[in-house]
Formats: sequence, C-alpha cells, structure tokens
Amino acid sequence: MNAEIIAVGTELLMGQIANTNAQYLSSRLADLGINVYYHSVVGDNPGRLKVCLEQALERSDIVITTGGLGPTKDDLTKETIAEALELPLVIHQESLDYIRCFFEKQHRRMYNNNVKQAYLPSGCKVIPNHNGTAPGCIVQKGGKTVVMLPGPPKEMIPMFEDTVFPYFEGKTHYIIGSRVVKVFGIGESEMEMRIMDLVEQQTNPTIAPYAGAGEISLRVTAKCHTRDEVEALIAPVVERIRERLGSHVYSDTGETLEEVVLRLLSERRWTLSTAESCTGGMLASRLIDVPGASRVFDRGLVTYSNAAKVQELGVSQKTLDAWGAVSRETAKEMVEKLVERTKTTAGLAITGIAGPDGGTPEKPVGLVYVAASLNGRIESLQLNLRGNRQRVRTVSCLHALDLLRKMLLGT
Amino acid sequence: MNAEIIAVGTELLMGQIANTNAQYLSSRLADLGINVYYHSVVGDNPGRLKVCLEQALERSDIVITTGGLGPTKDDLTKETIAEALELPLVIHQESLDYIRCFFEKQHRRMYNNNVKQAYLPSGCKVIPNHNGTAPGCIVQKGGKTVVMLPGPPKEMIPMFEDTVFPYFEGKTHYIIGSRVVKVFGIGESEMEMRIMDLVEQQTNPTIAPYAGAGEISLRVTAKCHTRDEVEALIAPVVERIRERLGSHVYSDTGETLEEVVLRLLSERRWTLSTAESCTGGMLASRLIDVPGASRVFDRGLVTYSNAAKVQELGVSQKTLDAWGAVSRETAKEMVEKLVERTKTTAGLAITGIAGPDGGTPEKPVGLVYVAASLNGRIESLQLNLRGNRQRVRTVSCLHALDLLRKMLLGT
Repeated sequence: MNAEIIAVGTELLMGQIANTNAQYLSSRLADLGINVYYHSVVGDNPGRLKVCLEQALERSDIVITTGGLGPTKDDLTKETIAEALELPLVIHQESLDYIRCFFEKQHRRMYNNNVKQAYLPSGCKVIPNHNGTAPGCIVQKGGKTVVMLPGPPKEMIPMFEDTVFPYFEGKTHYIIGSRVVKVFGIGESEMEMRIMDLVEQQTNPTIAPYAGAGEISLRVTAKCHTRDEVEALIAPVVERIRERLGSHVYSDTGETLEEVVLRLLSERRWTLSTAESCTGGMLASRLIDVPGASRVFDRGLVTYSNAAKVQELGVSQKTLDAWGAVSRETAKEMVEKLVERTKTTAGLAITGIAGPDGGTPEKPVGLVYVAASLNGRIESLQLNLRGNRQRVRTVSCLHALDLLRKMLLGT
Repeated sequence: MNAEIIAVGTELLMGQIANTNAQYLSSRLADLGINVYYHSVVGDNPGRLKVCLEQALERSDIVITTGGLGPTKDDLTKETIAEALELPLVIHQESLDYIRCFFEKQHRRMYNNNVKQAYLPSGCKVIPNHNGTAPGCIVQKGGKTVVMLPGPPKEMIPMFEDTVFPYFEGKTHYIIGSRVVKVFGIGESEMEMRIMDLVEQQTNPTIAPYAGAGEISLRVTAKCHTRDEVEALIAPVVERIRERLGSHVYSDTGETLEEVVLRLLSERRWTLSTAESCTGGMLASRLIDVPGASRVFDRGLVTYSNAAKVQELGVSQKTLDAWGAVSRETAKEMVEKLVERTKTTAGLAITGIAGPDGGTPEKPVGLVYVAASLNGRIESLQLNLRGNRQRVRTVSCLHALDLLRKMLLGT
C-alpha cells in the first residue's frame, strides 16, 4: 500500500508555518509499513485542491488530507473531496451534538457556520475530535481510502493515533521496523564509497543515508510479518555496515554522540566535567539536554576570556603566553586543571577560533584544539574546520565527544 | 508570476525532517510578490520526480527545487531536470576548482563522485555555494525558470539570499523591503488582540506574524519603486506596532535577544558572566554564538550539581538546605556570588526543573528562577513554564536575557 499526504492551507504557502503534519504522518505511516511517495501543499482553493486530489487518487491507494475542515467559507476540503468521490454530505447528529456541547462548555456562542462541520460524506467512518470542533473522517470508494484530518497538530495527532493508526494496522499485513546507524568522523562521499554496494544490493532491508552537521545517519528499514523477522533482517545488515565503517559507527540504535558518551560513563558510574572556550557552553548544553544527565555531568566552565582560563581553571599564564589560548598545550592544560579541580573521572576541553573574526595566517578561523582526560590519561586533537561560526562550534563539540567515546571504548 | 516548490528527498517522505525549506522559500517569495500555489515533496526517484517536474512546468512560471544535488548516485535532481528541459550537462570549471579547493582546505580526499557536482545544465546561471560542495543553478527555457538549490538549509538559505532573491528582484520591477519586529513576553493571542486591526488594514506594507519558541516575529514588508519609498512605508507601521506592544518589542531590526543585550552592554563597555543550572550552558552558548561576543562575555559557569554551586560559585550550603537548589533565594545568591567572583558589570543566573523527571508537587517541572545583576542591583523572576525539556530551557534563557535587557533600558 502506498499513500500520499495533501496539506490544505494558504498559511503553508505563505511560509507562516512549516508542514510538520506531513512529517508526523510520514513517520507514523512508515511504522505501519505504508510507503509515502508524495507530499503536496495546496492553498484554500477548491479548483487547485480538486486537481491535486484527482491526481492523488489516481496514483495512490491512500490519500490523507490535513486542514480545511474549519467553519469558515475558505474551508472546503470536505466539500471538494465529496464532490470528487461523488458522495453526498449528510449531517452526522453525534458530531453536531458534540460541537454544540463544545461551545456550551467554553461559554462561547455557536455560529451557524459551525453546523457545516457536522456534515460528513455519506457512509464514512467518523474520526472524533476531542480537542476541537472539526470531526475527521475515513472514506472508502473504488478501492481507494481518503482520510480527512484537521490542520492544527494538537487536534490532528490524537485523532490519527486514536482512530487512523489502529484502522490501518488492521489492514496492512506487514510490520515495518527500522534502526538508525549513526556515523561520525567520515565524509559523506567516503562513506558512500565504502558501503555503496550494500546500499545498492539491499531491497529488504533498505539503507537510507542522511547527512546532518558533521554526522551521518543510515536508516536501515525492513518489512516483514513479525517483529522478530524484521529484527532478523536488520541485524546482519547493521553488522555489515559496522564492519565497513569500523569505529566511525558510534550507535546502531539512533543514539546521539552525547547519549553514547553519557551512557558509557553512567554504566561505569563515572563523572564528567567540561571546559569550553570557543564552543562557549554548547558542549555542556548538549550533554545536559539528555534527560538524566545529572547522574554523570558535574559541571562546566565556559572560560571565554584568558583571565577566566587562568582564574577559573588555573591554566598558567606562562602556557598562554608561550603557545597562545588556541593551542594544543592550552587545551591539554585546560582539561588537566579541570579534572584536578572537579575530581571528575572524565573531562573535555575545547579551545579554538570559531570566526568570523579572530583568525590569523598562522591560526586561521576553524583551527580548534580538543583535549579529553579519562582516569588521568589525556589525549588531544587538532581540527581544521570549515563553515560558519555555528558549524565550527557544533563540529568541535562532536569531535570532543567522539574523542572521549573512543577513549572509553579503548579504541 | 507564480511559483511552486519541489523538495526532493526520501528523508522528507520518511518523516525524518520537516520541509522547513519550503516554508523559508515561500515566505521570501511572498516578499518578492511572487505567489506560491503548490509545494510538493518527492523521493529520490527519477521517475516520480520527472512527473512532478513536468506538471510543475506546465502550471507555474517558476519552479524551485531543493535537495538531490549531492555527490551520491541517489542525487538525481539536476540530471532529471536537464533531461526534462532537454539541456546537456556540461562541466563548470570554476565549480570544479572550488570543490577541489574545498576538499584540499579540509585535508580530505576528493572522490570521483564529487566531480558530478560540477556538471551543470548548459547555459545556466550558476549559484555559488560557500557552505558546501554542491553549486545550484538557475535555468531559463521556454518562458519558464527553474532554480535548483541544495537541501541543507545552511547551504540553501545563503545561496537563495545572495543570488536567487536579487535575481528575481531584478525581474519584478519592484523593490521589496522588510523589517522584522521581534516581540517577547506576550502570548500570541494577546498580541493578535492588540494589533489585529493593523494586520487586517495593512496591504502595503503587510504584517506577517510568526510565532517561534517563546518569541514572536512580525515581518513588515513593503513593495515600492525605491529603497527610500519602501523605508518610508515601513517606518510608521513599525512605530504603530511599538506603540501597541510597548517594551515587549525588543528589536525592530530583526536582532535576537542576545544580540540586543550584548549590544547594550558593549555600547557601555560593560561585561557579562553567567551561572546556569537547568539550562546547562545554553545561555552562554547563545551569547557566544554572536560574533564579537568576546568583547562583553567573560565567562560562564555551568553548576549543575549542588557541589558545583557551592564550590564554583560559593553559594552557601545553608541556602541550598533551607530553600533548595530551585528557589528564588538560590538564583539570587548564584548571581550575587557570580559577579563578586568574576567582577563583571552584569551577571545572569538560572536554576530550575527542565524535566521530564525531577518534578514534585511543590516544585513541578517547568518551575524556573532567573536572576540578573547589573551594577550591584539584583532582580529575579519566577517562571512556570510549559512544554518539553528543550522548550523549558530555551524559554528560560529568553526570560533571563529579557530581564537584563529591561534593566539595561531602565524599564
């Protein structure tokens, strides 16, 4: 079965909001094993909606619409679909009673145009809306299924979860599962060279690469009849990816780098502190963004000025004078003094030039030093990063986390 | 002129990311006075992309694609479009040199598949990409314009702003200018009540509200024949918005809250330090994300554990025992000890419960205390925030910055 999603709403075409409904629905349809081949967005315009809808009904088994179920005269999704499917709209008494009740409870006056919301295509399955006035519906005709949902996510999501998901779960004879393999420290092109044949050969599971800032995700997705069969298909493919990419793979369960590092430390009941210059708290912030980080993360120092490096961390003025704030020596001394001070098992320090200013021919923008300490052992890295300030900072954090991860794994 | 946007990428159809590119482009095309009638999303599948593209070329004057310009064999946007328009792909030497240089600078090996990125449709206008390897292009044929942009927003947005926006600006015979008024500390509904009549009455300039995490932006856009005329139309409308929203308006030039605070401090040659618990470095990181922050920002302490609050900041154990780590008293003592220690003119402290765990009936998730110090004067706020961990942390940072902003302005 394949599906497509049509969002109706001029506010999407004006760029006032992003189509997060399509993202949500796609990810849940993937869980159901239903392939989504198209998203479209069309304005509150019955002519253009009709064209989209007719095309969708021709090429897809399932069409899900969001938006255009409101009370105003612009809201024409239901009317247009009913016309295209040649189904009359009939009053649904239960929905009308619910809408009346909804207004009474809120001490608001119900207008005549709200009655329009209780008209639904004849023979449809009604999707109750407990967070708004517009009911949705599921219509089946000529082997096609059309699902109409309202636009506001806080109405749409519960309606999908309570009624639409169970409806399709009963119809698909497949279970779909996926695992996300996360990769760091290798370019997109190089990664592809190493695993291209796997990506090409695989049909079930499939392997879909996605590149973010400095990281790559590989989603391995299989379709089968039981959860166990799905897992049995995925596991050997993940194993082969691991063989090809080695320690560049930092997770095969979709964890972030900070989650992996915190988990490895937490399992050993070890603790972590950070000292940051150019990343300015971003590393601490990423770590603390993980729920439960407090078991591991003790404290972070953002020593942006040289004075702060001396006063807060105890880096010697001599080191700063001899090598400069952005140097391997300073990074190492930062982490050394940090763990001395905090008594944590592990420490991470970052110092560099994030730009756009502050670069020199000898120390250009993007030059960053990272140092990690684990049980008294210190390792460091020199990075030459490209991109804007935000990217230099983000990728520096990832390198710091990855360095500590490798030390924790003894690789 | 009307346009449509086609996003290419299986990751969109799998629900891994939302189509924020379409939102961005739509809002900027609206600024240009170009109507957007359709968005579509299609996977990395040349057959389906071709169908979408042919339909788009039939019904729209301008087709903008995002995604599918990468080096991998899945990336087929350019090839498919060139075929549909019957244009050969030819090597663009300048782009090839740039890509080579890009890899050299990063000390990374360039693979053969990267060469593919330098092939562009014959006769196109090349859009340089300063943040990645994939150049974009603008192709004109048979009265239609096709614009190809890469998928990552950090590449796509600068390319659109530097090349595509001016390109269309030259064709529309109008000059379009806009100013973004930034608002904090007021709900979306309340803001709408206060300025709804302005939004409705205005046609040139138009006022487009957009709500982000805790902040609201109002984009005031005017269309005229000269820059001066545009500015003359915008200025009085901005003035009226300021009258209605008072000190909730923190910028009418699109500055972020942290930029405003750093500018106000920098103008006075004052300095700032931070002490964070639940926000864990996010506040420092936002500040340091602003280029030139080093003139103002001295240091930040992420005192996540109670021990760190005592040892790093000098908060008294008595205060922690009597009031708890999440209390107004602790927040105030954090900022007091912070500025004592760092000798900065200003200080900000945040302590709270970001969730999902750690809440109690007396101190629920979302309870946050913020304290600011300026020249020895301390002010504090109690916040009761809603939403997930990320939102609680983000909104806490905004409140802290806004508190200091108001103190700096003496309001």
